[in-house]
Amino acid sequence: MKRRDFLTGAAVTGAAAATLAVAGCDSGQNTADCAPGTEPASPAIVTNKRKLKMVTTWQKNFPGLGTSAERVAKRIEDATDGQISIKVYAAGELVPAFECFDAVSNGTADCYNGAEYYWQGKSVGFSFFTAVPFGMTANELTAWIYHGGGQELWDELSARFNLKGFLSANTGVQMGGWFNKQITSLEDLKGLKIRMPGLGGEVMRRLGAAAVSLPGPDIYQALQTGAINATEWVGPWNDLAQGFYKVTKYYYWPGFHEPGAALATVFNKDVYESLTKGQKQIIQTVCHTEHDYTLAEFNQKNAGALDTLIKDHGVVLEKFPADVFAGMREASAAVLADVSQESEIAGRIYSSFKENLENSIRWTRISEEAYVNMRTANAG
Amino acid sequence: MKRRDFLTGAAVTGAAAATLAVAGCDSGQNTADCAPGTEPASPAIVTNKRKLKMVTTWQKNFPGLGTSAERVAKRIEDATDGQISIKVYAAGELVPAFECFDAVSNGTADCYNGAEYYWQGKSVGFSFFTAVPFGMTANELTAWIYHGGGQELWDELSARFNLKGFLSANTGVQMGGWFNKQITSLEDLKGLKIRMPGLGGEVMRRLGAAAVSLPGPDIYQALQTGAINATEWVGPWNDLAQGFYKVTKYYYWPGFHEPGAALATVFNKDVYESLTKGQKQIIQTVCHTEHDYTLAEFNQKNAGALDTLIKDHGVVLEKFPADVFAGMREASAAVLADVSQESEIAGRIYSSFKENLENSIRWTRISEEAYVNMRTANAG
Repeated sequence: MKRRDFLTGAAVTGAAAATLAVAGCDSGQNTADCAPGTEPASPAIVTNKRKLKMVTTWQKNFPGLGTSAERVAKRIEDATDGQISIKVYAAGELVPAFECFDAVSNGTADCYNGAEYYWQGKSVGFSFFTAVPFGMTANELTAWIYHGGGQELWDELSARFNLKGFLSANTGVQMGGWFNKQITSLEDLKGLKIRMPGLGGEVMRRLGAAAVSLPGPDIYQALQTGAINATEWVGPWNDLAQGFYKVTKYYYWPGFHEPGAALATVFNKDVYESLTKGQKQIIQTVCHTEHDYTLAEFNQKNAGALDTLIKDHGVVLEKFPADVFAGMREASAAVLADVSQESEIAGRIYSSFKENLENSIRWTRISEEAYVNMRTANAG
Repeated sequence: MKRRDFLTGAAVTGAAAATLAVAGCDSGQNTADCAPGTEPASPAIVTNKRKLKMVTTWQKNFPGLGTSAERVAKRIEDATDGQISIKVYAAGELVPAFECFDAVSNGTADCYNGAEYYWQGKSVGFSFFTAVPFGMTANELTAWIYHGGGQELWDELSARFNLKGFLSANTGVQMGGWFNKQITSLEDLKGLKIRMPGLGGEVMRRLGAAAVSLPGPDIYQALQTGAINATEWVGPWNDLAQGFYKVTKYYYWPGFHEPGAALATVFNKDVYESLTKGQKQIIQTVCHTEHDYTLAEFNQKNAGALDTLIKDHGVVLEKFPADVFAGMREASAAVLADVSQESEIAGRIYSSFKENLENSIRWTRISEEAYVNMRTANAG
């Protein structure tokens, strides 16, 4: 899932501006919250109520990601007892999906919810905060972001655009995609018309495929007409909804291109800095809670949808052959090394990412990887 | 890590009771937060400030878990702008570690931070909300708790004790432990004096080992004197600090007994219900943020400590042979099936856990497991 996967529409103007409003110990409030022996006095104190605008790169109610943006807003409103309310705009309602970054940077909106790799045109450094080919799993990414210097590098890059971001979702490991023929060797990728945007697409091009970008709603027809022979999307939950099983035969695993796509909620830095210490804490905790919550949701929903695809729709699961995966890995390493030469900061982000990933791999290998591996082997 | 791993001491009395305090638009506050053209009036409104007591099962500043309890309290205080302040008591300061459950249930304290499997004497059902042998990884557990009916079952069980709990930390996959001899077959476990408490210990006993429980501070000496031949603890980060590498030779992976130990912050239900909607939202988001944050911290710190153990201390890493792991798996399944017959609710928790785990395994196998597997194989 990459740029152009999203419906964009006409801009809607006239969103509410930030206002001051009156709050107090009003008559609807439990009197236990008021001073003993005093009557509720309203208005007694003025609170700086904030109304913020969140633009998103998602279609309205896009499962998993659009719904997460709505929950981020709702949780912040609930946690601040309405002190901050956030109106969420789907892609195109206030600005088109791919103008979210600029809109928040220049203050047209207060925050956006989207994927940082959409902004690789600003700096390829942003890609590392979502997902890169043969990169980090969700748990490896949080280790880097929260405890390995990742957040500090992200803040440094974002500050150049007057932005401040937080991780707020993760899709988990994505599937390799839908193919109309079996992939038995790297030769089979040559000339393959596959829909795979971004750095994954660049890897595919280096392997001889004709990788293209297509918006989400156009993929099904392109597969049906043979305009493309293959496509990646997300995972069973989202892929089932798109109906790709009706027009393609093989569902490949695992995906090399997005081993855990993180999404982010990103604020205009001036707006963020204007908030109270408590409001900042609420925003950070809400975002990171959503990271935890959505990763769990994708895993749970993917497990269920996978069963449906296999049992109800006869989808054939295929594993990429080891030599194909090895070729993808080699090409991916070359692509990352090349693109990170874009700028000094992209180079530093890549170095930090790479060092943390190598450390993580050593630990993952003997812990989670070994456990799930031996558990499955033993389960037959 | 299980019951009795923690120092307990003399109870400390005289903690602050919940009080009402005066808050308003006081002189120290930015006037931008006050009504334009009005002077700050103090006291203008009374807020129900709450002072809560958190007891914990951890030693003061126990890395990863004790520090997380402190952060939970700090984050809640920050997010509520001091409306809720929580005083954290290490094990033994207010009540001994293993009286936390009763203390919060009966209102002596307002909440505890600890591991639910410590309360398996109340119901073995609690064990499933921390970790059980051959159970769920951290990501599989959140899928079940947040989206698979786990939280509802936990709430039902907890309500019987007037409690309401939230996930608030996870150690990730634990190591298999420290052994003074190599384990080449199930025969080598017979008569082995191993420190492994709880359900993991029961599995070991069924395999012929003499599993014992020992408090954390006693393990080192027991290993040194030969009173025990082996011990499990947590992972490289915590194990390095205990110095086991000085007196044992082999460090085994992966652990079968705790494939992701979740910790919880649990409130007295009456206290929790007395909070405002906003305060409840803050508590939930802070707990789940800490779940995300601590899992990342364990993974990051374990990766670093693993390097130190190998490079600086010459620790020899050993993988459990497949047939040994298979034997542990078989014994684990039997133990879980047996203990869950304890009560009707334990049986329902076990059934739900088992069904969700089986679904998760099918998805994990072709996603995260396949990705990290093929990535490592390709990396050589």
